[in-house]
Amino acid sequence: MRSKKKVSIKDIARLSGVSVATVSRVINHNGRFSEETRERVEAVIREYQYTTDMTGKSLREKKTHTIGVIVPDITNELFAAIVLELEKYFFDQGYSVLICNTNEEDKKEAAYFKILESKAVDGIICISGSEDLPEHIVKSGIPIVCIDRKPKGKSDVVYVESDHYLGGYIATEALIKKGCRKILILSKQKALSVNTQRLSGYLDALRDYGLPVLPEHIVGLLDDDSNFQGAKDRIFYMAKKNLSFDGIFATNDWRAYGALVALQQNHIAVPEQVKIVGFDGSSVSEYCYPAITTIQQNKKELALRAAQALLEQMAGKAAEEHRIVLPVALVERGTT
Amino acid sequence: MRSKKKVSIKDIARLSGVSVATVSRVINHNGRFSEETRERVEAVIREYQYTTDMTGKSLREKKTHTIGVIVPDITNELFAAIVLELEKYFFDQGYSVLICNTNEEDKKEAAYFKILESKAVDGIICISGSEDLPEHIVKSGIPIVCIDRKPKGKSDVVYVESDHYLGGYIATEALIKKGCRKILILSKQKALSVNTQRLSGYLDALRDYGLPVLPEHIVGLLDDDSNFQGAKDRIFYMAKKNLSFDGIFATNDWRAYGALVALQQNHIAVPEQVKIVGFDGSSVSEYCYPAITTIQQNKKELALRAAQALLEQMAGKAAEEHRIVLPVALVERGTT
Repeated sequence: MRSKKKVSIKDIARLSGVSVATVSRVINHNGRFSEETRERVEAVIREYQYTTDMTGKSLREKKTHTIGVIVPDITNELFAAIVLELEKYFFDQGYSVLICNTNEEDKKEAAYFKILESKAVDGIICISGSEDLPEHIVKSGIPIVCIDRKPKGKSDVVYVESDHYLGGYIATEALIKKGCRKILILSKQKALSVNTQRLSGYLDALRDYGLPVLPEHIVGLLDDDSNFQGAKDRIFYMAKKNLSFDGIFATNDWRAYGALVALQQNHIAVPEQVKIVGFDGSSVSEYCYPAITTIQQNKKELALRAAQALLEQMAGKAAEEHRIVLPVALVERGTT
Repeated sequence: MRSKKKVSIKDIARLSGVSVATVSRVINHNGRFSEETRERVEAVIREYQYTTDMTGKSLREKKTHTIGVIVPDITNELFAAIVLELEKYFFDQGYSVLICNTNEEDKKEAAYFKILESKAVDGIICISGSEDLPEHIVKSGIPIVCIDRKPKGKSDVVYVESDHYLGGYIATEALIKKGCRKILILSKQKALSVNTQRLSGYLDALRDYGLPVLPEHIVGLLDDDSNFQGAKDRIFYMAKKNLSFDGIFATNDWRAYGALVALQQNHIAVPEQVKIVGFDGSSVSEYCYPAITTIQQNKKELALRAAQALLEQMAGKAAEEHRIVLPVALVERGTT
């Protein structure tokens, strides 16, 4: 019994006693070979279980029908849901999706962009990240669309995002309308476009309702802080010292949940003494007690619009709009 | 300004006025070309930003330093956590990880196995799935290790799994020790090895403690039922009709949570009237109210052992054991 190890097209040629070009023609059903040759080559292929190598094929056809998706953290529910929607959509359109998890490490991200390039994907969707998208990546030549991530500098890259400004505004407004006057924003320090936009919404809502902006109310967690634990520690400390706030706009549901737990541990009643609004619509906001009022992002639509934009780009069409912004919605629950 | 589109090795050869073989030798620093040729080829490569195509390279070197991971549902927290651990471990060992989400569709799974083969991955980790792993996939020739999934029939494939039998046993025992006498198992009908093992543990615990097995207490959800909604509907119906049980062993935390909500909606007190134990240690079990007692799987160790087994196989070593079983632990919370 012969070993069934994968063989190269070169091996097939050698074993069939024909040229590589002939094997290639047989595989691609591209005329110019005798019936006898076809039979010989196909017998060898069967014998060695040679599967048409898509990457080899891609060097010829320049299409691999494969899409790469770069995601910073697959365990982030929002990202996982978007990836799932992308996969479903692309698969139905005849594309396979290769997912790469960068763990929010820039070095890893660069490595995965290179890998996807070398695997000859037809296009890349890049979801979020720890930095705005570096220019050298944007210029790699492969069609690319970003979700929730702004490409750095001037660039033609299409990006799809939720209306983070609107989210920040309606979250803050919801707290104000429920009677909060001292509203804290609990975000990350890093000046990512999503953070900056949510902060703008918060600031504009305060201004529109005539409330002052206090530096102590702008709380930015460090990069290394986990959303839940970082928020919990910070709010625990602030609540113990001196409760200087009656509302929290947390720019992520896990931060909102961390804040909720910290308040509960300090016997501060939510929503009676402090109200909380989160962001994303993650399951934790739905299943904790009390359930957290949040800003819901439209994951399905984010995926769909990004996928469509990428397919258009792959078909050589120029993008009509480079920034696609999708509305968000307030979901009222127990913390307001 | 010239376009920076990706060019093939053939284009480089044409533009440099040399053969493809020569370009290949230059790229691989493999002697037999003049200094002048090297300079000319490298200039063209620089000009066109040609990146060495790893897949082309792989056909020569037969190693791509890429691992494929097949996962049925990336939004399943347990699977996502395992994938994350796999990615981290492999990346540190110099391997990139391409993740494929099959959406629990057998057709899609087969397609992704083919894709990974064509992308010339060095090995595949296959997590769970809707069926035990089909034989033709096991025999594809690429090293493969399964997590939480038994290969079909007799096979040499290594698989790593939690001790599902033990999990089923200690979950049931925990309920018995808390006073439950009428314990329901809430599982899936499909005879997957994980389901079968958990059921065995449940049955043996009942037997060891002298409790009868009642057919009405073995509740199997259909494949199409969602874990949460399916469990909720089923338990809602059973609780409304006639509360014939005082304990529920749900073989998944979302099913446990569905049962909890259904009981609460029927004003049945948990844990006073009915106690619940889940399985997996998902965040929902931790953050719902009351938090759910569960069987914790060791996600990190599952990933680590599978990764190590795959690397050994890739290095040509024979597996010492084909089934690696990891212990599970009871985490006691509010529902017992």
